[in-house]
Amino acid sequence: MPSRKRRPTRPLRLAFGGNVRKLRLAAGFSQEALAEKADLHRTYVGSVERGERNISLENIHALAKALGVDVRRLFD
Amino acid sequence: MPSRKRRPTRPLRLAFGGNVRKLRLAAGFSQEALAEKADLHRTYVGSVERGERNISLENIHALAKALGVDVRRLFD
Repeated sequence: MPSRKRRPTRPLRLAFGGNVRKLRLAAGFSQEALAEKADLHRTYVGSVERGERNISLENIHALAKALGVDVRRLFD
Repeated sequence: MPSRKRRPTRPLRLAFGGNVRKLRLAAGFSQEALAEKADLHRTYVGSVERGERNISLENIHALAKALGVDVRRLFD
């Protein structure tokens, strides 16, 4: 088995969350409006934007769909 | 609160897993080799490829890094 290496996860989450926030503001949505469109909780969207969540594939897609963007835009 | 809508999650996971498999084979890696490079368990990589996992942001990045591709390639 490989040793468990520490990964720099916080910058990764922050970069992702920053993209969500940027695209949300570009779309003119509040966190609450985005959450409702994506069928997620408002506080969850806020925590993703702040880099606090290790968001899953399905929620990544839900956010991209609600933002009206290709999922790859969230990884720019 | 919005109602909880059902999402078609299986096709999404399958598409993602298919991309992982395609890129893994293109790189000439076994599942075990990819798992070791990404610091994940071999059986986990197999289950991702079969669309059985709602993989997280951090593991998505670990796989992309191990495959030597931009993370966006996993969402083509």
